[in-house]
Amino acid sequence: MITKNQFKLIRSLDQKKHRKKQGFFLIQGQKNVDQLLHSNFTIQHIFATPQYIDKIGSILTAQFLNKMTTEATAQELTKAGTLNANNSVIAIAEIKVTPPPNITENELVLVLDQVGDPGNFGTIIRVADWYGIKHIICSPDCADFYNPKVIAATMGAFTRVSISMTELTHYLKKQKEPIYGAFLQGKNIHKIQLSQSAFIVMGSESHGISAPVSKFINTKITIPNFGRAESLNVAMATGIILDNFKRT
Amino acid sequence: MITKNQFKLIRSLDQKKHRKKQGFFLIQGQKNVDQLLHSNFTIQHIFATPQYIDKIGSILTAQFLNKMTTEATAQELTKAGTLNANNSVIAIAEIKVTPPPNITENELVLVLDQVGDPGNFGTIIRVADWYGIKHIICSPDCADFYNPKVIAATMGAFTRVSISMTELTHYLKKQKEPIYGAFLQGKNIHKIQLSQSAFIVMGSESHGISAPVSKFINTKITIPNFGRAESLNVAMATGIILDNFKRT
Repeated sequence: MITKNQFKLIRSLDQKKHRKKQGFFLIQGQKNVDQLLHSNFTIQHIFATPQYIDKIGSILTAQFLNKMTTEATAQELTKAGTLNANNSVIAIAEIKVTPPPNITENELVLVLDQVGDPGNFGTIIRVADWYGIKHIICSPDCADFYNPKVIAATMGAFTRVSISMTELTHYLKKQKEPIYGAFLQGKNIHKIQLSQSAFIVMGSESHGISAPVSKFINTKITIPNFGRAESLNVAMATGIILDNFKRT
Repeated sequence: MITKNQFKLIRSLDQKKHRKKQGFFLIQGQKNVDQLLHSNFTIQHIFATPQYIDKIGSILTAQFLNKMTTEATAQELTKAGTLNANNSVIAIAEIKVTPPPNITENELVLVLDQVGDPGNFGTIIRVADWYGIKHIICSPDCADFYNPKVIAATMGAFTRVSISMTELTHYLKKQKEPIYGAFLQGKNIHKIQLSQSAFIVMGSESHGISAPVSKFINTKITIPNFGRAESLNVAMATGIILDNFKRT
């Protein structure tokens, strides 16, 4: 049974200030927790149905099972959880702070400028993982990586893609590899040669890439438009651009 | 001011059975209504802030303005609307039933099998519009095209892409052009020649393309995976596949 204090802790982690204060974040639902168990995140506690605890019992130590798991009903978990979906498991894990990495040879690094929507951010992490991206750099005004909605939308990819938050102009200024940026008026990505070591900058759907960050873009790129839609969702545009980089 | 009966009508159109009975559907938010005004849908009524009615006044006849528009406050519109967003306008328009079209030369027709999530369906319509797709055929168990969440996610593209619902096996059986289908184990879309007159079948994210429909697929195609994510969201996969068809 989930105690009153545990219930309060779980609910509080829906908010950034409490995540920051406690140093913890929430992972909800089987798919995401399955991946968490095989990651290098430090798990602090697991609340789950007896069925789910049975399922994962073989990969946890007896000590962990005794001290760090709590059996709960699906009703309790749904009540405690912060997402609009029935849950069989809620995990609490420690927040990691990852400094911005150095780019390695033949690496594509994704850079997000003001991507504020948690669902979009999570979907970007998921498609980045599909294309083998290891690192995403995001501006301080992106959605918080540890927002439960971001984690949920990654479908487990949050365990494999590292996210660093930093001032983008300071970071991009130091880079030597080509920096591409997605714009509505740029070079057609179907027609140009794309570098295999590069930074790919995506801006917010409503405002695009901000002016200070734009100064560091070497090549403006565009997904050609064959119809009359005015724009694409930023997560969709990221997936299509990554596909173009990986096909060359 | 929105009357009690009008309020009831708007709220009822959130449900399929009421849309079917009344023959109307809802279009909410400026972006979608802006596009509606330039479409061939028959508008039945517009509820909007005085500012929005001012803005659209020049493109409507005096008769329409008098009889078919109602001024309302943003608070009233938010209360009447069915979406979690502030509204400056809600429109009611007539449902159209579009029979499945015949494919024309150099046309790509998108076919959706059991795409049940309204957000995904709407996002697919939006990206299809970007790539110039004119027709989408969907199975009877797809989300209802006239669901307010579908309409909202299309960002106006619902006015340009026609959607026909039909039994897919009956429809595909009669076709002579190549029929491609997205599978996790198919031919790498980066490596094969893709026909410019074709049907592209997408299945649901959880179940893929159903067995009866699979029988009509000539070529199974796959987006190559460079990382460890298990799958892509069906809307994302549709966008990436369309981009590959249009680049050849």
